[in-house]
Amino acid sequence: MNLSIPPVDPQWIRRAEARQLELTKPPGSLGRLETIANRCAAIFESLSFRLTLPRIVLFAGDHGVCAEGVSPYPQAVTAQMVLNFLGGGAAINRLAQSGGIDLQVVDVGVASALPEMPGLISRRVAAGTRNFCCEPAMSRRQVESAIEVGLELAQQAVAEGSNLLGFGEMGIANTTAAAALAAALTGCAPADVVGRGTGADDACVARKISAVERALALHRGMFSNPLDLLACLGGLEIAAMCGFCIGAASCRRPVVTDGFIATAAAALAIRIQPHVKDYLFAAHLSPEPGHRRLLDAIGLDPLLDLEMRLGEATGAALAMQVIGAAAAAFTGMATFASAGVSGKQ
Amino acid sequence: MNLSIPPVDPQWIRRAEARQLELTKPPGSLGRLETIANRCAAIFESLSFRLTLPRIVLFAGDHGVCAEGVSPYPQAVTAQMVLNFLGGGAAINRLAQSGGIDLQVVDVGVASALPEMPGLISRRVAAGTRNFCCEPAMSRRQVESAIEVGLELAQQAVAEGSNLLGFGEMGIANTTAAAALAAALTGCAPADVVGRGTGADDACVARKISAVERALALHRGMFSNPLDLLACLGGLEIAAMCGFCIGAASCRRPVVTDGFIATAAAALAIRIQPHVKDYLFAAHLSPEPGHRRLLDAIGLDPLLDLEMRLGEATGAALAMQVIGAAAAAFTGMATFASAGVSGKQ
Repeated sequence: MNLSIPPVDPQWIRRAEARQLELTKPPGSLGRLETIANRCAAIFESLSFRLTLPRIVLFAGDHGVCAEGVSPYPQAVTAQMVLNFLGGGAAINRLAQSGGIDLQVVDVGVASALPEMPGLISRRVAAGTRNFCCEPAMSRRQVESAIEVGLELAQQAVAEGSNLLGFGEMGIANTTAAAALAAALTGCAPADVVGRGTGADDACVARKISAVERALALHRGMFSNPLDLLACLGGLEIAAMCGFCIGAASCRRPVVTDGFIATAAAALAIRIQPHVKDYLFAAHLSPEPGHRRLLDAIGLDPLLDLEMRLGEATGAALAMQVIGAAAAAFTGMATFASAGVSGKQ
Repeated sequence: MNLSIPPVDPQWIRRAEARQLELTKPPGSLGRLETIANRCAAIFESLSFRLTLPRIVLFAGDHGVCAEGVSPYPQAVTAQMVLNFLGGGAAINRLAQSGGIDLQVVDVGVASALPEMPGLISRRVAAGTRNFCCEPAMSRRQVESAIEVGLELAQQAVAEGSNLLGFGEMGIANTTAAAALAAALTGCAPADVVGRGTGADDACVARKISAVERALALHRGMFSNPLDLLACLGGLEIAAMCGFCIGAASCRRPVVTDGFIATAAAALAIRIQPHVKDYLFAAHLSPEPGHRRLLDAIGLDPLLDLEMRLGEATGAALAMQVIGAAAAAFTGMATFASAGVSGKQ
């Protein structure tokens, strides 16, 4: 991870703000579309950038903590949903297509072996993680391998011409891993960051809280180094998303996080390389209580609040359309001068 | 206005809710995308509807109350912006194109004569309204003619194959008209519904409040009939948008309102034909203080909150993409049974 990630140059933000004032609209009237476009301009160091070939990469991995009864769905659903992604039948397939977004599906560590299939990017680091209530979820070497998977897929997307990247995940039980990471990253109590995930009932939520409490107690002392933290409490798909963020930022591309689990990965990426934040957009706010706390901790405002809590990069897919619209307005609008429109009196 | 507008059948909402439970996602996990799709299914009375040829119609008109110094921009900007729309240089041009949305521009009552131009739909009812601080903004006949313009354009869009309609406006000084209508419709004090519009300074805001107060005092007694209310305090583009809502609903098509001014028109449409509400989606929340009050009064939750306050249907354009995504997920996703995905344990 010797990638250098420079902060975006605030001079470019100011140049973009000045340009916004020339466009045929009252100053500031496009609201957050303006700040989105300004940050894109600073990332690209251009007032005439074009967003091309938006791509979402979806990372799937399984979680040993599933054994603690923390999800109402069986672990087999991770693999089943990967097949559903490849068949085009999941929500993210429809949302990505609706937004003109390319979608890649990556197996970083699904528990059961998946058949070789067209469209499946097989980069398995392990057959799922171990149960972090009993031992570290991963070895440091596994963490580094999974991060490398994400890094490489971001770099590949950029090499193939993608200018706007998004990411998301699939992994039964991974809201429990994200809650453990959120508690360790923010200092919040487990009960404040554990939510219902895919629809846990009260007993299941109690098991999630207990699992997070035991994991925090077991691994306390390993949380100051983000790679150790990932190894103890993370997941293979979470490590890969973390690498994806770092890879996108190192290529100077805007990168869009998704919900609670993806945001835990983004928070870890920022912990590893603080300037990742300059390249990161928070897609949406999910009802998972830990999501708001993580977003507050990293200081990002979500663009959307549609009560979505599915993961799969579904929030990222919608937010990427908003970012595309913001860019289209910024780079395509006429100026007061060019259109012959009078300014303020 | 003898159009019959039936309420949507709650049986169809329940059928759509049942279908949502079969799709490969945890129940409710697509949040508001699910309620959007369910309402569309009820509007179309189909679980396999397709949204086709989304169209936005943008209505331009001028306002006599401009003479009270209520806008920082000169009245000429309305006509200049119409030319900008036709030239493709305004924010709505870029946002509509980015979302694959057809855009029509209609002159219902711009003060200065516009040249005949390709793409301009000229349906001028008058050369702007009169100053409602001194006299009714329009005659009842003008109101009815402007409503008819909107009605016809909605019906024409549907006849041409559009299945999802949006609308918006351009008219210097029209936040003052919308504020007067909002005060009359909600009973709020003028100071609670007047905002900065396109960027009014404190003195200009004071003039807006004063203009609304004088208008309310002058026309009080005319507010119980929505057509009289429109005649006294409305605008030609506001009446046309009101007709557009009614026209879309009478054709049983979902229709998307925009910001403060468009929502005032939608509120009047609901006052005229209450079941219009079943077909109406509120695109976004603008920072104009009267917008939230109008939305609360009609009981609609905005989909987006991006601090946009431009009008021109820019919020509608973004929301129509969200609605398109909601529909794509609902009608295109696999079921647990068809994809072989396990349900809850």
